[in-house]
Amino acid sequence: MNYINGGVTAPKGFTASGIHCGIRKNQTKKDLAMIKSEVKCTAAAVYTQNKVYGAPITVTRENISDGFAQAVIVNSGNANTCNSDGVEKAKLMCEIASEALDVASTDVIVASTGVIGMTLDVTPIANSAKELAGQMSHDGGHDAAEAIMTTDTISKECAVELELGGKNVTIGACCKGSGMIHPNMATMLCFMTTDCAISSDMLQKALSSVVCDTFNMISVDGDTSTNDMVSIMANGKAENPVIDSENDDYKAFCEALMSVSVKLSKLIAGDGEGAQRLLECTVKGAPEIQTAKSIAKSIICSSLVKTAMFGADANWGRILCAIGYTPGEFSVDTIDVYLSSCKGTVKVCEKGYGIEFSEEKAKEILLEDAISLLIEMNQGQCEATAWGCDLTYDYVKINGDYRT
Amino acid sequence: MNYINGGVTAPKGFTASGIHCGIRKNQTKKDLAMIKSEVKCTAAAVYTQNKVYGAPITVTRENISDGFAQAVIVNSGNANTCNSDGVEKAKLMCEIASEALDVASTDVIVASTGVIGMTLDVTPIANSAKELAGQMSHDGGHDAAEAIMTTDTISKECAVELELGGKNVTIGACCKGSGMIHPNMATMLCFMTTDCAISSDMLQKALSSVVCDTFNMISVDGDTSTNDMVSIMANGKAENPVIDSENDDYKAFCEALMSVSVKLSKLIAGDGEGAQRLLECTVKGAPEIQTAKSIAKSIICSSLVKTAMFGADANWGRILCAIGYTPGEFSVDTIDVYLSSCKGTVKVCEKGYGIEFSEEKAKEILLEDAISLLIEMNQGQCEATAWGCDLTYDYVKINGDYRT
Repeated sequence: MNYINGGVTAPKGFTASGIHCGIRKNQTKKDLAMIKSEVKCTAAAVYTQNKVYGAPITVTRENISDGFAQAVIVNSGNANTCNSDGVEKAKLMCEIASEALDVASTDVIVASTGVIGMTLDVTPIANSAKELAGQMSHDGGHDAAEAIMTTDTISKECAVELELGGKNVTIGACCKGSGMIHPNMATMLCFMTTDCAISSDMLQKALSSVVCDTFNMISVDGDTSTNDMVSIMANGKAENPVIDSENDDYKAFCEALMSVSVKLSKLIAGDGEGAQRLLECTVKGAPEIQTAKSIAKSIICSSLVKTAMFGADANWGRILCAIGYTPGEFSVDTIDVYLSSCKGTVKVCEKGYGIEFSEEKAKEILLEDAISLLIEMNQGQCEATAWGCDLTYDYVKINGDYRT
Repeated sequence: MNYINGGVTAPKGFTASGIHCGIRKNQTKKDLAMIKSEVKCTAAAVYTQNKVYGAPITVTRENISDGFAQAVIVNSGNANTCNSDGVEKAKLMCEIASEALDVASTDVIVASTGVIGMTLDVTPIANSAKELAGQMSHDGGHDAAEAIMTTDTISKECAVELELGGKNVTIGACCKGSGMIHPNMATMLCFMTTDCAISSDMLQKALSSVVCDTFNMISVDGDTSTNDMVSIMANGKAENPVIDSENDDYKAFCEALMSVSVKLSKLIAGDGEGAQRLLECTVKGAPEIQTAKSIAKSIICSSLVKTAMFGADANWGRILCAIGYTPGEFSVDTIDVYLSSCKGTVKVCEKGYGIEFSEEKAKEILLEDAISLLIEMNQGQCEATAWGCDLTYDYVKINGDYRT
């Protein structure tokens, strides 16, 4: 398996584009994207577990229930959530895409991201759909990735290729993150495409299992969004033997999908609102996998750990504190803690107690852009990793006046 | 029941004082306090549920296990937690207090607050204990309240009086909060005193029930500290008929204790690290009390709600989002949301959907120091309140370099 350049249009048979249609006031920011496959695809998705969920999720869930889709329409600038006419508007977006792209409206995946509770005006979408459709190309994945950004500072794309049954199979994806990021069963908008031939059932199974260990292990601010969604469309253009059981090809496909998801998860965490540093927390030697996951998430979610990382301060007591309030059955008196980055590794805590370490070396390590916190529990064989970011002035600034 | 001036020395028979002994570098900040009753007291306490807990908690739990105590010694500047010699040092502090105050060392409540994982030097405590003991007086409650502050910007005291069996009974308290505040069964250091005659069992029962609805309903930053503790000592000097069952006097005592705890909880939340505003969230009409509590806490813990309040931005979609990710069985389509302060009330959401409201009026309301968020669920009779604060630049500043 190799990483290659590109995103959602890297696999065969997909086109995409993005445009400024007018939902966002800033005319330099794209706010509408569409993705299309030449042929109908098997499709799968996972959604937010928030009880308050966006109208686009209601409509996408319905459209995808038969296991097929052919296109995506997505806007930024307005989440179309908590609006009494939300479902109606989301369906209208599917019809606009249907007409512009010549696909069935029930084969459209629809998504929205932005402010919650503001009525969505679909007029700019209707007015720009034809222009957008006319621009769609095999090189348009990047424009689509740009159009789904909100407070993201970089667009996020990834593509890999692998060989299955002698055929070259490609997976591509774009996603957005930034704030309100604490996914539960999905993350804030990720669209994946592949030319792999794979059944809807196997596609859903692969996606669900990968999401649990990747997108669901990110947190920027502990707030699970109302509009999280990861979707994937597979159009079979690679002409590999159709994957319809958990055979070796399925495993290879899952592994490739995992690589894409890990890369995008790290991109989302590292580009969290206001973030200066990516935090990666790995918990090893845990008695249960769920304990490892919970502890890793507690640590990367702790405001005090996050602010300490912002200050490049080796205040490891806050890490122990976050471990201590994690639910679950485990003891704290066998736990070792290490801080690490490309500048080296320093052990700061042994068997739950502080030990002597060089503050100077720790500072040097923590001043890097990507920091690893390694927790060795010495209580079993289970391991998990979570990704987050530091908590900075800019997070407060961005969210203190998000709507204005 | 009336609020009166004063704190822990308001009840009969208690003396206290606070001093700078040298644990903290800043000589203008007091860092050691002692509280003493003339006679032995019934005593009760609740502690952090964090699996990592401070050595002082181990020692206090042991000392108080017989239901009696007579004095408190507490330092700020060092939490004496995650230190291999922590218990030894905490016991040494009890012995220092024992000698200076002429009480049994096993009748001492010991507490520490400050940095985790830094070895505690007890020399400054030993050297200053006599001087501190010499200063203790019936007016010294305020000095004690000052000595337990860390990043608190105001000292926090409260006292009430009530009549029980024809006798005047007083309850006094001091506490500290600020950061790492998300108490679970207790909060970061609160010491209560009373001259009420009450058995240890009834005192523990009263304290435990009050704490659940007050200190456990605060959050500043979601981080449950390792050193949370609320203790109370009752010396019987009021000469009321001893409370040893759940009679009317017990109920009146609980009510008074509740008033003290609510007031202190609001002081802690409003003085959260970096906070500009106190947030009070009341959930009414919930199907279960636990649901009401969980939703109220979700809202005041949400980084996005907290930053919106910092910006006085009526971004109510974030409130709905936080309601939506709260665990529990409830629906969102009957929920109304109101924003309120001394400047008035505005309804922003009805039955889960946004409604028209005056942004100008909402801004005026949210610019106040104390904001109420009222959630009317219309699904039952249960109600709960939680207290928090906004998330500001100063929170990040304070915690980015706490140790330096």
